[in-house]
Amino acid sequence: MSVAQEEVEKMRHSLSHVLAAAVQKMQELYPTTTFGVGPAIDKGFYYDIDFGDTKVADADLLKIEEEMRKIVAQKCELREREVSKEEALKWARENGQKYKVELIEEMPADEKITFYDMVVPETGEVIFTDLCKGPHVENLGEVGAWKLERIAGAYWRGDEKREMLTRIYGVAFATEGELEDYLKRQEEAKKRDHRKLGKELDLFCFSELVGSGLPMFTPRGTILRNMLADFANGYREKCGYRKVCIPHIANVDLYKTSGHYQKFPELLQFVSQESGDNLAVKPVSCPHHTQIFASAPRSYKELPVKYLETTMVYRDERKGELGGLSRVRAITQDDSHVFCTEDQVEMVFGELIESAKDLYRRVGMKLTLRLSFRDDKDAYIGDPEMWEKAQAAIERMAKKFEMEYFVGIGEAAMYGPKMDFMAVDALGREWQLATVQLDYAMPARFGLEYTDKDGTKKTPIMVHCALLGAIERFMSIFIEHTAGWFPLWCAPEMVRVLTVNDKVGEYVKEVEETLRGVVLEEPLKGNQLRYEVDWSDDSLGKKIKRATEMKIPVVLIVGPKDAETEQVSVRTRESEEKVKLAELAGWLKEQGEGCFATK
Amino acid sequence: MSVAQEEVEKMRHSLSHVLAAAVQKMQELYPTTTFGVGPAIDKGFYYDIDFGDTKVADADLLKIEEEMRKIVAQKCELREREVSKEEALKWARENGQKYKVELIEEMPADEKITFYDMVVPETGEVIFTDLCKGPHVENLGEVGAWKLERIAGAYWRGDEKREMLTRIYGVAFATEGELEDYLKRQEEAKKRDHRKLGKELDLFCFSELVGSGLPMFTPRGTILRNMLADFANGYREKCGYRKVCIPHIANVDLYKTSGHYQKFPELLQFVSQESGDNLAVKPVSCPHHTQIFASAPRSYKELPVKYLETTMVYRDERKGELGGLSRVRAITQDDSHVFCTEDQVEMVFGELIESAKDLYRRVGMKLTLRLSFRDDKDAYIGDPEMWEKAQAAIERMAKKFEMEYFVGIGEAAMYGPKMDFMAVDALGREWQLATVQLDYAMPARFGLEYTDKDGTKKTPIMVHCALLGAIERFMSIFIEHTAGWFPLWCAPEMVRVLTVNDKVGEYVKEVEETLRGVVLEEPLKGNQLRYEVDWSDDSLGKKIKRATEMKIPVVLIVGPKDAETEQVSVRTRESEEKVKLAELAGWLKEQGEGCFATK
Repeated sequence: MSVAQEEVEKMRHSLSHVLAAAVQKMQELYPTTTFGVGPAIDKGFYYDIDFGDTKVADADLLKIEEEMRKIVAQKCELREREVSKEEALKWARENGQKYKVELIEEMPADEKITFYDMVVPETGEVIFTDLCKGPHVENLGEVGAWKLERIAGAYWRGDEKREMLTRIYGVAFATEGELEDYLKRQEEAKKRDHRKLGKELDLFCFSELVGSGLPMFTPRGTILRNMLADFANGYREKCGYRKVCIPHIANVDLYKTSGHYQKFPELLQFVSQESGDNLAVKPVSCPHHTQIFASAPRSYKELPVKYLETTMVYRDERKGELGGLSRVRAITQDDSHVFCTEDQVEMVFGELIESAKDLYRRVGMKLTLRLSFRDDKDAYIGDPEMWEKAQAAIERMAKKFEMEYFVGIGEAAMYGPKMDFMAVDALGREWQLATVQLDYAMPARFGLEYTDKDGTKKTPIMVHCALLGAIERFMSIFIEHTAGWFPLWCAPEMVRVLTVNDKVGEYVKEVEETLRGVVLEEPLKGNQLRYEVDWSDDSLGKKIKRATEMKIPVVLIVGPKDAETEQVSVRTRESEEKVKLAELAGWLKEQGEGCFATK
Repeated sequence: MSVAQEEVEKMRHSLSHVLAAAVQKMQELYPTTTFGVGPAIDKGFYYDIDFGDTKVADADLLKIEEEMRKIVAQKCELREREVSKEEALKWARENGQKYKVELIEEMPADEKITFYDMVVPETGEVIFTDLCKGPHVENLGEVGAWKLERIAGAYWRGDEKREMLTRIYGVAFATEGELEDYLKRQEEAKKRDHRKLGKELDLFCFSELVGSGLPMFTPRGTILRNMLADFANGYREKCGYRKVCIPHIANVDLYKTSGHYQKFPELLQFVSQESGDNLAVKPVSCPHHTQIFASAPRSYKELPVKYLETTMVYRDERKGELGGLSRVRAITQDDSHVFCTEDQVEMVFGELIESAKDLYRRVGMKLTLRLSFRDDKDAYIGDPEMWEKAQAAIERMAKKFEMEYFVGIGEAAMYGPKMDFMAVDALGREWQLATVQLDYAMPARFGLEYTDKDGTKKTPIMVHCALLGAIERFMSIFIEHTAGWFPLWCAPEMVRVLTVNDKVGEYVKEVEETLRGVVLEEPLKGNQLRYEVDWSDDSLGKKIKRATEMKIPVVLIVGPKDAETEQVSVRTRESEEKVKLAELAGWLKEQGEGCFATK
């Protein structure tokens, strides 16, 4: 962490104490306040507080903030003091702070315990004391620019069987400028919320009958989904990847062999069958794909064998963590698996790295690379030498393909290390999306083999990859990244034709003919231009408004035909112009090449 | 049943008695023979026999058949005699026929019980007696042409908790010609067995780890699957059907609302979730689709709303009934659902009937129509008037669209009557494939509504349809129907280029360029020509053999380029000719139009 970052951390952490101090001071409003924990977090801080029977809502934020500002104005100091475990417990018990009691009791006997007192410098009065490791700012004059943000529920220690506390969030930055910038982005993010846009643009829906976290895609959303999947698959099809198709259930034995059953039993959702078979809904697709590879004897001549499948996996996500398409229980992955020789790994990685770079460039997101390595936990299969070799190979390839990277320890997959691509969207938020994974372990567990040149049997190496990651999650980000103004190639409705009155029917037919005749280029190749005609009796103004609300990229306004000019008006988000009918196909083709940059 | 059919039934039934008589007579080989039941069936007969500890295998068939022919040669008579329940039981107990005892015991006291004695006319000797309702041929001189066929296991009374008996199958027809014809078809069917061809042509595979009845599709099989699905979807997309996408699991509440949970609880395979949600793997897709319709307020102006989705459903089929792709546990349906007004039902049915007719004409199968109506069982939802109205509508439409039809009572769907299309394949076998179903019941159960012209809320009518039915089952039939010689449009590899030696590389590049430039027409539109080049060092003969074994529709043989003629040799299943490179695209386009008729 840089020095500047450390200072901001201190500000944020100190503000969480100020928050608790303010709430404690407002005894008339909040008669019982039992404190949980109050850390600094990315962009700010929070404090988890048990308010007893008192209801605390968003309306309280302003009052608490006012009280906090008073404390900050006093420029209180935060003074550290060491206490014994007995003293600490005595203090917590006397003050009825049961959560602190629990925390102190769990501390090892030899651990240094510190308290921080918040002291008014003029009087020396201690207005708040907290169990805390620090560090903090010297005095509250140095807490920067901040604001309380929102209120949420949070289980004590994240355990849904424990008490539900009230979590008050604040944001804090070193300068007013940074805070304003952040708040503006937040405002923009709210406008772009994919749950809101998903409804407005008629892309997906949920139903209580179908269940939480199980989105269904409307015709428009299905086009978007399919176009995104085709886009990501196209890169790999060009490299010889071929589509396969598997069912969404499997015998549990499959996951015992892969190791998922032993290492991540919580991934498995069992299906009861009368016939007594022990099945599960698939949490991953790689074990199925190993079985297609294993279905015929393989020669080195066939390698690399490259499978591609856009298919759903199922995870039992907690209800509290579900939200729109960001986290769902039925997750569509643009999954691919390569079975190759040691010599081919580099080429396979190279193709995928180039694909990821080009894909994210075209959707206007900057990429950084994380090498995801293992930690010491028991969450992995395969022996240590294999891991060392695989991690070294991953790092060598990152260098070879000239990628800037950082290493994330404990971020590896169960079967091997990963290259995880982090993409930055139009709002400056970073997301882990594409992933390329090296796997020396699973092929051996499944006894996969091929016959090498010399006639000996060898075990292939697997490379797992998803370029979009989960399509639902990618869509949630992409909708917010583009604010719903999708590039032409994936827009559910690329063009809408508006009629100025009911006398232009014949001319509209000519326009439609032109539209149907447009031959689309990459990445639109193989698709037809998707257009609709608004034949309604509404006024042109109303039609334009409706098309704009639906964020249709190209709107054609067809008035009476002028035999000489033969023009139509063309409106896009940025411009309005007149285009000759004979030139319309060319004009549209131009718009379709590449993706629009997001503004 | 026609008189002729009745006579054939009698022959087949009598032969099952002959089979049992022969086995009983061969006491040295089969010391204990306890008889189950022996009915006439389609094309022949069987008898279920408990052979005790004696193993009976295919090799026994010839010996048993020989013994049967001896009995038939004696022209024994089959004489009916009525017995009391006590007499019947006494006979069965004395002869150690425990299965017959069970059958007799279950008969109502007032039921007439008959035995049939097999009597040698010359001597009057009774060589076999069986509990039987008849009728039979007068004497065994009239049993026509017949043959024992195969041996299988069968649980007593189909109950897997009961004894496993040996079922011996025979075939029988009125004339030798019919028998020969049947056996020839059987021989052909064996050659075309889709399980055998599926492996040879590398289309699909199974894995014990993944589980029974869960096929996985290889790259070639996936192309075939997708082309068939696209083909069937294309008809509907032209009629305004739009693709949607749903997850494969849902809350059980969905199926309580639809009625599946109450009427067909065995359809539901439950998924356990930690979060306590009560989920199931979907056995049907229609309830999900109702929820997409319900996700927004609908106006009469939008109707008909037409959804299309190729998606899997899951059924807990018994292991004994699974076989290749014919019956599977993960079933892909080319499903579609229309929500429309009463006035629109006819138009919607019309489009689908025309689509089904054209689709099956193009794959070379003759269609007949069954109107599937309800019976008196408690397996339906919706009130009786609704059913009467719906069945009358179905019959009216069959007449309107000039379809010949017959009525199948008890064949309706849970929610309404169906039009089921029966298709006859190249081997003369009839299959129930496409289905169009009228549903007045489910929209009401889900509270679906639209606002009509007059502002009132109305309930839409649903039309369910699948043109292929289950894609796996369709594939199993289609593979056997075509013997693996797929029409060009759906062949996984349409064209294979063979090189005569390694000096023709440059010319092959020109040929490839020609192939890549082929613009395909309906039903290939939007696809690229799928071709591969066999660059191996093998002899041309070996390459041709391999391409023929893989049943590649078009094989191009590229020899040294003759600057003047610029030809390539083109081999198909039927012909061999030389085509100029400049004319190759046109030649290929001709081959791709329509589907090849199967020979």
